[in-house]
Amino acid sequence: MSENDKYVIGVDIGGTKIYAAVVDANGAIIGSARKRTKAHLGFDAVVGRIEKCIRKAAESCDVDIDSQITAIGIGSPGPLDLKEGKIIETPNLKWVNAPLKSRLQELTNKPVVVDNDCNAGILGEYAFGAGHGAQDMVGLFIGTGIGGGIIIDGKLLHGYNENAGELGHMILDPNGPQCGCGVNGHLEAFASRLAIEREIRKAHSNGEPTRIFEDMEDKTQRIRSKKLAKAFADNDRTVKAAIEKSAIYVGYAVANLLNIFNPQVVVIGGGVVEAVGEPYVRLVRKTAKDKVFNIAFRNVRIVEAELGDDSAVLGAAVLAWNYID
Amino acid sequence: MSENDKYVIGVDIGGTKIYAAVVDANGAIIGSARKRTKAHLGFDAVVGRIEKCIRKAAESCDVDIDSQITAIGIGSPGPLDLKEGKIIETPNLKWVNAPLKSRLQELTNKPVVVDNDCNAGILGEYAFGAGHGAQDMVGLFIGTGIGGGIIIDGKLLHGYNENAGELGHMILDPNGPQCGCGVNGHLEAFASRLAIEREIRKAHSNGEPTRIFEDMEDKTQRIRSKKLAKAFADNDRTVKAAIEKSAIYVGYAVANLLNIFNPQVVVIGGGVVEAVGEPYVRLVRKTAKDKVFNIAFRNVRIVEAELGDDSAVLGAAVLAWNYID
Repeated sequence: MSENDKYVIGVDIGGTKIYAAVVDANGAIIGSARKRTKAHLGFDAVVGRIEKCIRKAAESCDVDIDSQITAIGIGSPGPLDLKEGKIIETPNLKWVNAPLKSRLQELTNKPVVVDNDCNAGILGEYAFGAGHGAQDMVGLFIGTGIGGGIIIDGKLLHGYNENAGELGHMILDPNGPQCGCGVNGHLEAFASRLAIEREIRKAHSNGEPTRIFEDMEDKTQRIRSKKLAKAFADNDRTVKAAIEKSAIYVGYAVANLLNIFNPQVVVIGGGVVEAVGEPYVRLVRKTAKDKVFNIAFRNVRIVEAELGDDSAVLGAAVLAWNYID
Repeated sequence: MSENDKYVIGVDIGGTKIYAAVVDANGAIIGSARKRTKAHLGFDAVVGRIEKCIRKAAESCDVDIDSQITAIGIGSPGPLDLKEGKIIETPNLKWVNAPLKSRLQELTNKPVVVDNDCNAGILGEYAFGAGHGAQDMVGLFIGTGIGGGIIIDGKLLHGYNENAGELGHMILDPNGPQCGCGVNGHLEAFASRLAIEREIRKAHSNGEPTRIFEDMEDKTQRIRSKKLAKAFADNDRTVKAAIEKSAIYVGYAVANLLNIFNPQVVVIGGGVVEAVGEPYVRLVRKTAKDKVFNIAFRNVRIVEAELGDDSAVLGAAVLAWNYID
């Protein structure tokens, strides 16, 4: 590494933490830093914390921001105004029309490129993870909610109002359970971690056997993905059925996406998938294969995401590398 | 019109008829011809009939194919191998690996560009019809079956195996009625003309009142779209309910497509929509609006196709105009 080497910085802004990484052109993270978001302090304070996190990441690997960083990419909660780099609103962070891009440009004196966190994660997997080498890719992150993203001809699909890729909000049964957004039968309402948890609690209250609540002091507390994965591995029947239902509905959604886009790769990631792993992806793959035209499945890969927590900073780094003055 | 003017020829190959049109750069049809397909005669005979139809269209407007036609575009039943210009197979025409492009190039001595008929129709509406002026567009044709097509950044989306845009085969309820393709709950199984007909027959056999069978000698014969439209206009309750159910399911599909692509325009066409008209499109629009994020609906147009039977020849003409040696 010489003083002439150029890098970018990718930043992942979440509801609880900020993660910044210095990234080279091959997607290697050569330095990083984390900070708590502390969203309750308000937008101005959080932008200051993002700046500090960026500087700390650069210091961690002795990179000089002024001379060695060409641009900064951000994955942020949205919806966003991409051109202005404004956060239109964030249920998590309670900001409205927050000028993220312009404020960070002032503070760092660097070009800043913004996209939503889910798109950044998909772009990271596309460039440096499970989608590497493909031309078209669709990605789904199965976590507390379900997010998605679409790459066509190597570019993120943003759409007319920059709101494409809301794959969690695909109706899979108009008479299905209500989604957090209010509409019935969305993929998210069938397959997210919250949906899995609801399914388990319903079965439990109907007398189905499960040991998942045994070591929980407060049985109403959130069931984390790792706990779900352990019960799945232990063959807890009720938990297994709920997780398999999630994978089957994700499989229906993937079948739809294959018939719609016919992509080369479908990447499945997020907390639920990371915790359960290949058995989950295998069931998604089997369900999709059963429900899709043979031709749209030929040589198509349905694979687990590879980058874990790094996907969004690496995708944000791609945004920064793609920045042209 | 002078002898120096250049044109292209667009051809729409259907199961029952061939339609060829001479088209200028503005999408005006200056001459045309039709011929029956006579698919039972086999591929060689039909290619000869296509050539004759092309020559007849050129003669109808005194255009010289050798000197005035730059290329020929074809909308064909599929699936197709687009690069080779081969028809991989056609349930309607019973051809397998038919070398449509190379044979027509030999016969006409012109470059030939091939795409599937539904994509050609969508491209026609995009360039010269209801989608004119948009950048991104999604189209659905509701006929005997349901076909679709997707335009991103002004280009048809083909996908990895050239099979993108199968929008009729979107699962809208995994426990729904079986589709012609064998999978349960596809849009086509809820909303095509055949699905509407099945719904009416089911209601009729359950004793629901309808007058649609009154003037039919053979009550098992196919109910055509025009007959459906007349009964709809006459307020036949059972027919109305079946058509409205079709429009509502198309509305669910459009909501999904808006959340997935966030296009600027959604064009709805095909026999059922042409016959029923604006009341059908209005119900699609209302249903989609109720089920989609506000931001993905902002300034988005959901409109009826404008070109009728000309959509595919005009889209085929666009393919030909886009041909670059």
